[in-house]
Amino acid sequence: MHIVLRQINPTIGDLAGNTAKIVNGIQEGRRLGAELVLFSELALCGYPPEDFLLLPHFCNALEAELQKVVAASKGIAVVVGTIRRALPGTGQKFLHNSAAVIVDGRLIGYQDKALLPTYDVFDEARYFEPAESYRVWDIAGKRVVITICEDIWQHSAAVIHTSYRRDPVREVAMHKPDVLLNLSASPFSVARSETRLALCRAVAQTLHCPVLLCNQVGGNDSLIFDGNSLYLDREGQLIAQAAAFREDSLFIDTEVSAVPLECQSTEPIRDLHDALVLGLRDYFAKQGFTKALVGLSGGIDSAVVLCLAAKALGADRVLAVSMPSRYSSEGSVTDAKALVDHLGTGWLEVPIERPFQSYLELLTPHFQGLPPDTTEENLQARIRGMILMALSNKFGYIVLATGNKSEMAMGYATLYGDMCGGLGVINDVTKRQVYALANWMNRDREVIPHSTIVKPPSAELRPNQLDSDSLPDYAIVDTVLEEYVENHRSVEDIVLAYGYPMAVVDDLVRRIHRNEYKRRQSAPGLRVSQKAFSIGRRFPIVQKWV
Amino acid sequence: MHIVLRQINPTIGDLAGNTAKIVNGIQEGRRLGAELVLFSELALCGYPPEDFLLLPHFCNALEAELQKVVAASKGIAVVVGTIRRALPGTGQKFLHNSAAVIVDGRLIGYQDKALLPTYDVFDEARYFEPAESYRVWDIAGKRVVITICEDIWQHSAAVIHTSYRRDPVREVAMHKPDVLLNLSASPFSVARSETRLALCRAVAQTLHCPVLLCNQVGGNDSLIFDGNSLYLDREGQLIAQAAAFREDSLFIDTEVSAVPLECQSTEPIRDLHDALVLGLRDYFAKQGFTKALVGLSGGIDSAVVLCLAAKALGADRVLAVSMPSRYSSEGSVTDAKALVDHLGTGWLEVPIERPFQSYLELLTPHFQGLPPDTTEENLQARIRGMILMALSNKFGYIVLATGNKSEMAMGYATLYGDMCGGLGVINDVTKRQVYALANWMNRDREVIPHSTIVKPPSAELRPNQLDSDSLPDYAIVDTVLEEYVENHRSVEDIVLAYGYPMAVVDDLVRRIHRNEYKRRQSAPGLRVSQKAFSIGRRFPIVQKWV
Repeated sequence: MHIVLRQINPTIGDLAGNTAKIVNGIQEGRRLGAELVLFSELALCGYPPEDFLLLPHFCNALEAELQKVVAASKGIAVVVGTIRRALPGTGQKFLHNSAAVIVDGRLIGYQDKALLPTYDVFDEARYFEPAESYRVWDIAGKRVVITICEDIWQHSAAVIHTSYRRDPVREVAMHKPDVLLNLSASPFSVARSETRLALCRAVAQTLHCPVLLCNQVGGNDSLIFDGNSLYLDREGQLIAQAAAFREDSLFIDTEVSAVPLECQSTEPIRDLHDALVLGLRDYFAKQGFTKALVGLSGGIDSAVVLCLAAKALGADRVLAVSMPSRYSSEGSVTDAKALVDHLGTGWLEVPIERPFQSYLELLTPHFQGLPPDTTEENLQARIRGMILMALSNKFGYIVLATGNKSEMAMGYATLYGDMCGGLGVINDVTKRQVYALANWMNRDREVIPHSTIVKPPSAELRPNQLDSDSLPDYAIVDTVLEEYVENHRSVEDIVLAYGYPMAVVDDLVRRIHRNEYKRRQSAPGLRVSQKAFSIGRRFPIVQKWV
Repeated sequence: MHIVLRQINPTIGDLAGNTAKIVNGIQEGRRLGAELVLFSELALCGYPPEDFLLLPHFCNALEAELQKVVAASKGIAVVVGTIRRALPGTGQKFLHNSAAVIVDGRLIGYQDKALLPTYDVFDEARYFEPAESYRVWDIAGKRVVITICEDIWQHSAAVIHTSYRRDPVREVAMHKPDVLLNLSASPFSVARSETRLALCRAVAQTLHCPVLLCNQVGGNDSLIFDGNSLYLDREGQLIAQAAAFREDSLFIDTEVSAVPLECQSTEPIRDLHDALVLGLRDYFAKQGFTKALVGLSGGIDSAVVLCLAAKALGADRVLAVSMPSRYSSEGSVTDAKALVDHLGTGWLEVPIERPFQSYLELLTPHFQGLPPDTTEENLQARIRGMILMALSNKFGYIVLATGNKSEMAMGYATLYGDMCGGLGVINDVTKRQVYALANWMNRDREVIPHSTIVKPPSAELRPNQLDSDSLPDYAIVDTVLEEYVENHRSVEDIVLAYGYPMAVVDDLVRRIHRNEYKRRQSAPGLRVSQKAFSIGRRFPIVQKWV
């Protein structure tokens, strides 16, 4: 069977644009002599459409749009992700997450999704009813079975922290399919593509048939879809893999036995870099933004963000703003300038001393003689935030926030200060990963000044301040973060496993919860781990557990 | 049967504190000779515990805590909301939302919840598996059936925008119960208590048995639970209703026929006021905060918020800060001062001219001769935000944000400016409701100056600015808001129904979506409508539908 697997980058709600991509794919498939063209989950509206699915007029439009795809499918079969309305009056939710099956210009039916992920960032039970059963589709004389994303995940127990009553792969085994298709919108996290491959291997081996997984690619808000669509033969050998982080197609002949792909060694830090670049680029492109602004402190976080922005948007579309204060070290300003020279971005220097002085004069009389504290530190961070936002308002730049995940966890950032921005580029990147990114960016030549990488982290908001004055070593912070936030382990467990002092771990966990209120007001961040501080992690602000 | 219905105000995760309230209730029930004491849904951990439920050590602690309740239940029966772990290895989610049934110091079993709300602010499918069936519990010789909150809502089709395959009320009808208990955590929205009453009436009439609904009371983050627990007799007549917005108990004898309560006329604006006061008070009390700060502009929004804060916390714990600029009218400052005199709150005046001037001098050289625009307006709003945050940092005040729902919808507020704060008190209150609240607060004497209420709304960020310069009439804004946001109607439908110009409605809907990014960074707000801009409304920032 000749199949074109078409890995597209849809935009949420851009029905006309997404349809154009789908119709292009069909035409390409026809040109190449394919019998079937396969698209990703909810390709017609983009994933995740969230509460647009609750708007009846949105669903109407989606159904109308599908008819255009049907009309474009003469002489070929198409399997594309969209919604299906449940029958009225059946007493259930109103939609299914479905694959429309189109053969020679006729919509012959739908295959609904059976497993509806409702954990982490996924809320599919909010919108959909599950499939009752699976059908076999006769396409070009082959027995084709269609699954959607999560449907195959229970088979390898790869879903973390939950499980299902059903394993659809077992259900479809009795159908003895010739080909298994899977329409996915499976977001990136570090090493996720390897999990996906292992999963598809298990499915192919159970079903003794080729498996084609067509994944979405592109950034939508926090989520970054990495593509990496897969074709495995009936032995579970990887025969072809679509590109990571960009649109791509695979042309597959399931009847010809092919040489398996060499097992490529993955580079987690390169993937992380590429994911962030894609997430940033799409956040801008899909909203029509062109210019970014980064407050460049001379520290490593803003340096890495500036590099990512220059890569994603082009250096000429990025302005770095240095805003030194009375506490900024000379090295910081020099380092910042050196980085800008290496990258070729714009550069503006706006010292904050005068507004800082003006606030101190205004407020000190009201401070009742109390000594300087974080108030004065936050004033500086907020003045910088205001300067960035003023430049944003005047010229249309989008401000990129530069806080990393370790800082977001600890609340080591100023609300309305350095947390200002349209996008938190490295919100989900730990401090240790930030260093790894910096070193990776410097792999060929020194882009980020060596001194930026080796100097001890400091917010430079008071004389001789170091992060280590108020935080434990970032290695400890990051380990607790991973074990507590990602793995749901208790303080006691972490102490037992790592031998850190109980008081240190307990304090870190308390900080994570105490700073929930700050993160709730942070710029939306790009999700690159299995558990980001985002919609995927839902804890109350008001609580007395921790 | 003698039942004490105990309407408590639990704090999320405060297991010891919640258990103490429960044990007190049991002791009180025993003292009054009750056979059964009834508590609300998830009373042991407070509702909603959100992702705490994903932490195994949290669930362990909850199970241990239940044993204390069991131990305190000698000589009496207790029905209390908690979790139940699903059996390991059954291939499903790991928890049930359950009622523990305790008789004479022994845990005799659990009744799980069958309908798991997964819409709006509810995410129960994220955590729970549904009940398979209902049991009849023999308690004090009566056939008692237990349901949990949503379980009875399908019966009257009162759930908006979704429906269920099952109607548990029909399922339990065959058991011919003598008494139906319902453990609820049903949040406030305007007129919700009337819906709840109508629902219970239908259930009682279907089952021909008394219905007792025990609701949670108190604020937890955005959600405000109004209490208003109910007892209806077998005819569906309301016999007793617990207090609104505070802890209360009902002592019920289901064997004695009683005189139905007079139908009380509800006052939606008083309820709204009381809900906001409770939400604000609990947000502070449950986190141990004592002092609030309000930027008082002389306009109606900040006036209403200041009144609510004074009511909730006491005037002596509230500081009003006037921050006049070159564009502030004299009337605004006078009005603000008059309100503070009426209420007796603290008062501070911090003019913003000097920092404003300092920013202009700093930034104008970088503005390339561009004319003044919203940049300069936002600067003023952000200076005010910074002053409030500095006072907050220095003295421990929590800043209250004063934006109303109409402004939040339109983006008519400055991010990091007047949107600063720990709590958005009136985020979910439309401009029209703000006026109604002001008039209600003035019902006995003029608290909010008449001139504040009658003057045209203005942000006073440039000479002679009025909201009506850039927004249609608030009556139109609020209608579109209700129809589009709450009722999911399309632009076309709204135009047909109200006769507003298409361009106006279309522009308003576009603004609602375009300002998603601002709301994403707003202070968490108190939810008082059926659809707040909060976790209950999930739309992507990056989208091309609208």
